[in-house]
Amino acid sequence: MRVLFIGDIVGRPGRKALQRLLPRIKSLYGPFDFVIVNVENAAGGFGITQKIFDELSSMGIDCMTSGNHIWDKKEGLSLLDSEPVLLRPANYPPGCPGRGSMTLKGPSGELLVLNLLGRTFMYDVDCPFRKADEILQGVQLPVLVDIHAEATSEKRALALYLDGRVSAVVGTHTHVATADEEILPMGTAFITDVGMTGGHAGVIGMHKETVINRFLTSMPARFEACNEDLRLNGVCLDIDASSGRALSISRISERLEEEAYDRR
Amino acid sequence: MRVLFIGDIVGRPGRKALQRLLPRIKSLYGPFDFVIVNVENAAGGFGITQKIFDELSSMGIDCMTSGNHIWDKKEGLSLLDSEPVLLRPANYPPGCPGRGSMTLKGPSGELLVLNLLGRTFMYDVDCPFRKADEILQGVQLPVLVDIHAEATSEKRALALYLDGRVSAVVGTHTHVATADEEILPMGTAFITDVGMTGGHAGVIGMHKETVINRFLTSMPARFEACNEDLRLNGVCLDIDASSGRALSISRISERLEEEAYDRR
Amino acid sequence: MRVLFIGDIVGRPGRKALQRLLPRIKSLYGPFDFVIVNVENAAGGFGITQKIFDELSSMGIDCMTSGNHIWDKKEGLSLLDSEPVLLRPANYPPGCPGRGSMTLKGPSGELLVLNLLGRTFMYDVDCPFRKADEILQGVQLPVLVDIHAEATSEKRALALYLDGRVSAVVGTHTHVATADEEILPMGTAFITDVGMTGGHAGVIGMHKETVINRFLTSMPARFEACNEDLRLNGVCLDIDASSGRALSISRISERLEEEAYDRR
Amino acid sequence: MRVLFIGDIVGRPGRKALQRLLPRIKSLYGPFDFVIVNVENAAGGFGITQKIFDELSSMGIDCMTSGNHIWDKKEGLSLLDSEPVLLRPANYPPGCPGRGSMTLKGPSGELLVLNLLGRTFMYDVDCPFRKADEILQGVQLPVLVDIHAEATSEKRALALYLDGRVSAVVGTHTHVATADEEILPMGTAFITDVGMTGGHAGVIGMHKETVINRFLTSMPARFEACNEDLRLNGVCLDIDASSGRALSISRISERLEEEAYDRR
Ligand SMILES: [Fe+2]
Ligand SMILES: [Fe+2]
Ligand SMILES: [Fe+2]
Ligand SMILES: [Fe+2]
Ligand SMILES: [Fe+2]
Ligand SMILES: [Fe+2]
Ligand SMILES: [Fe+2]
Ligand SMILES: [Fe+2]
Repeated sequence: MRVLFIGDIVGRPGRKALQRLLPRIKSLYGPFDFVIVNVENAAGGFGITQKIFDELSSMGIDCMTSGNHIWDKKEGLSLLDSEPVLLRPANYPPGCPGRGSMTLKGPSGELLVLNLLGRTFMYDVDCPFRKADEILQGVQLPVLVDIHAEATSEKRALALYLDGRVSAVVGTHTHVATADEEILPMGTAFITDVGMTGGHAGVIGMHKETVINRFLTSMPARFEACNEDLRLNGVCLDIDASSGRALSISRISERLEEEAYDRR
Repeated sequence: MRVLFIGDIVGRPGRKALQRLLPRIKSLYGPFDFVIVNVENAAGGFGITQKIFDELSSMGIDCMTSGNHIWDKKEGLSLLDSEPVLLRPANYPPGCPGRGSMTLKGPSGELLVLNLLGRTFMYDVDCPFRKADEILQGVQLPVLVDIHAEATSEKRALALYLDGRVSAVVGTHTHVATADEEILPMGTAFITDVGMTGGHAGVIGMHKETVINRFLTSMPARFEACNEDLRLNGVCLDIDASSGRALSISRISERLEEEAYDRR
Repeated sequence: MRVLFIGDIVGRPGRKALQRLLPRIKSLYGPFDFVIVNVENAAGGFGITQKIFDELSSMGIDCMTSGNHIWDKKEGLSLLDSEPVLLRPANYPPGCPGRGSMTLKGPSGELLVLNLLGRTFMYDVDCPFRKADEILQGVQLPVLVDIHAEATSEKRALALYLDGRVSAVVGTHTHVATADEEILPMGTAFITDVGMTGGHAGVIGMHKETVINRFLTSMPARFEACNEDLRLNGVCLDIDASSGRALSISRISERLEEEAYDRR
Repeated sequence: MRVLFIGDIVGRPGRKALQRLLPRIKSLYGPFDFVIVNVENAAGGFGITQKIFDELSSMGIDCMTSGNHIWDKKEGLSLLDSEPVLLRPANYPPGCPGRGSMTLKGPSGELLVLNLLGRTFMYDVDCPFRKADEILQGVQLPVLVDIHAEATSEKRALALYLDGRVSAVVGTHTHVATADEEILPMGTAFITDVGMTGGHAGVIGMHKETVINRFLTSMPARFEACNEDLRLNGVCLDIDASSGRALSISRISERLEEEAYDRR
């Protein structure tokens, strides 16, 4: 079973990078049983809307994970209830709209996708470790976990905690790909962060000027998605469908050539 | 001018990895004009002592940078005043012992090393952006900056802010190497984090059991350095000594083979 | 010299409480040389606008201090530059609009008002302790400091640090009055927090339902000012105009009777 | 039913204040059905030991609550399991030693004491709101809740959430008494913080010099309990034993006269 997992799509530039680069990636590294994309920043960097959900769906995405920004657009909240392929972290407390996991069905079998949120430097949600225990109870591998978190320690601790119980733990949220992809001792593929998809000339997907200015002044600021140096970041995972063990994890980073996009 | 920068040395395993692997790295990628190492975790994961400072000095280190953990051992405080090659972040407030920058002199010229601390999710220190402005006033390139920080956004924002004014901005503190090394538009080499040097089987250099347990219980815990899967992480930088521009930045990650070390 | 300092005005209910109760307070505890009000939450709980600034000005306020929420309404930013009586914390970095201190002139002499922001659990601004040192250099007493901060320790540490160098240190931001008003050993009046002015039936000035729901779900929420149980909180300070020492500090808490306001 | 609740005992000065002042308070405001004391800082400011537990027990304390500092002394951990009157916040995750609630039996009936920890600006524990729901399921009033938390909003939101379901919600942890004690609409007594018991000349119970120095330098520091201006802070609660509703809540603040203690 081959799975493509793509990191946080940031705004219009992120969607453009995805649309233009996905075919090339499919032809280079595919075919994929499943394409999974983190969409928490798809709408201008903050949340998701119906229109953007439809746009992404039309690109052949099988499952959309998310994170802390999923609540930023009001439209996104109803989508979480109506669209089974759109996930929010499972450890948001009871009473939040949406679901945190789903099962994909493909040619070589099923894959459970589980979305979790870290707490260190983030939000007061339920324990991601125990929420994983709860959801994985009696579940069959293969399982892929998107741990959306800030701290490297929390992501790796979760991966080691789940080692052998899931097929892969892939990190999102910092928007910078890490160089530590590996197969853990009990067969779980892990990477601290897969990086983001969007304009890489700025700061984690946003125009550099406003971000630098916020660090200089500590005043709140309106960020806009950066539209230069568009790249797609993700990982390609090979999973043994019968054992659920990961066979390989490799980083994918593709750049959209300048002539290929107009800078709107 | 070729510079080797090595990420946070974690405890005895980190020192062992450094001692055993440095000669190999020198022969593979050297000779280096300067070897710079972040030592904030050199003593059992927390700070530095006289004995460990001497041990590291004997390995041929030209400059030691550090970070938030430099204060953890009382001995370290007096070392900061007595040892000019040992730095602490320059943007700790006036009144703290030690220095935040120094000039190295080598065969192809001088290199200013500047150590800074990020503030996001960290500590209430002076602004690293303005402290860099202040120190770089009238300074000649080449300059290397170790930005010890948690947030990817703060590190990259600083690098873009300093682009063209320093030769390199290398990140430390998260203990996980990122895959985003590049030369920024105005000639500054950048990487969000160079990763750490020590046991990679645990969680960012520490035994996995205690770290996982802390995430599960939120109780304070005593961490111990992990002694398995010893690796050294860093970057090799080529800097044009006359212009001060970076010519290249490449990640280095070397593993100490099992037979080569005993697991004390 | 008698000074009335009133805590954070929260939205329309806060402005109503101020307008209706200020005359009564003046007749009960006045006359006051100066009336100073923290206005960071005056516009719907978040920032200030031209219209609301004018409304407050017409009530006979001599100086308006603020805090972290002063940036929330775009209009507020230009007011900070155009209106000398409107302050923002002085330790926001250079480059921010506005001023952090001003001198009031009254019948029994001048009073310097200094607004500062705490950093613990708050924002990465300049050190409030050293900013106070800088501004107080060569300044004549009396001086009143509004320390807008979260942590009790930071507020009291600042007050003890400034004891004898200013006439009063009054805390704001937590919206709950503390019962620790006192004259410190060297003559500085201090209270950790003066509390807020607005609807006290909710949670720190906001409708209880949305606040409770945010704690239950960790989802972002739009808060609205609470309109029940309107009260004004502040302190009355007596300062010896020649020595600048505080003679007394007493808490004021007045409730607007139900019949006196309509619940729009 | 009359209950005396006393805020965080800080170190030896706090224990001395408790021992010397408790008899006077009992004679002034008693007799009390129950005396409850928060002991998280009883041992030098950090945690508790066997010796100090015995010392406090001998003073006639019926129940000891605590907070985030309860884990600071290793001895405290085993006490949590062996001593039923010593509580730690109930919303620490499963796997932590100790208990978070207990039932006191007295002349006018039983009282359930429930200890909870806030999460805002604090630690990643289980949701205190839902943990309260869980423990209060089927429980008879009267119930007293010690909410040990930093943010005023979280404490008041919890009190309003539990209004009518418990007899009292008293806050601890900030070490500064608030002036907002009241009976909420459905009959629950509430105060944001009862303040601390110990030396009030310093900063929240600690020597002022080290605390100020930490704010100035951001370096870690060893704090020592302040031994000047010893005071005891708490609240006296009257609860209708049959309905469980609070009849009154009043703040108690007693100072130990200088001659009454030696400054060891
Ligand atoms: Fe994101
Ligand atoms: Fe995120
Ligand atoms: Fe480190
Ligand atoms: Fe660090
Ligand atoms: Fe406020
Ligand atoms: Fe505020
Ligand atoms: Fe405490
Ligand atoms: Fe506490």
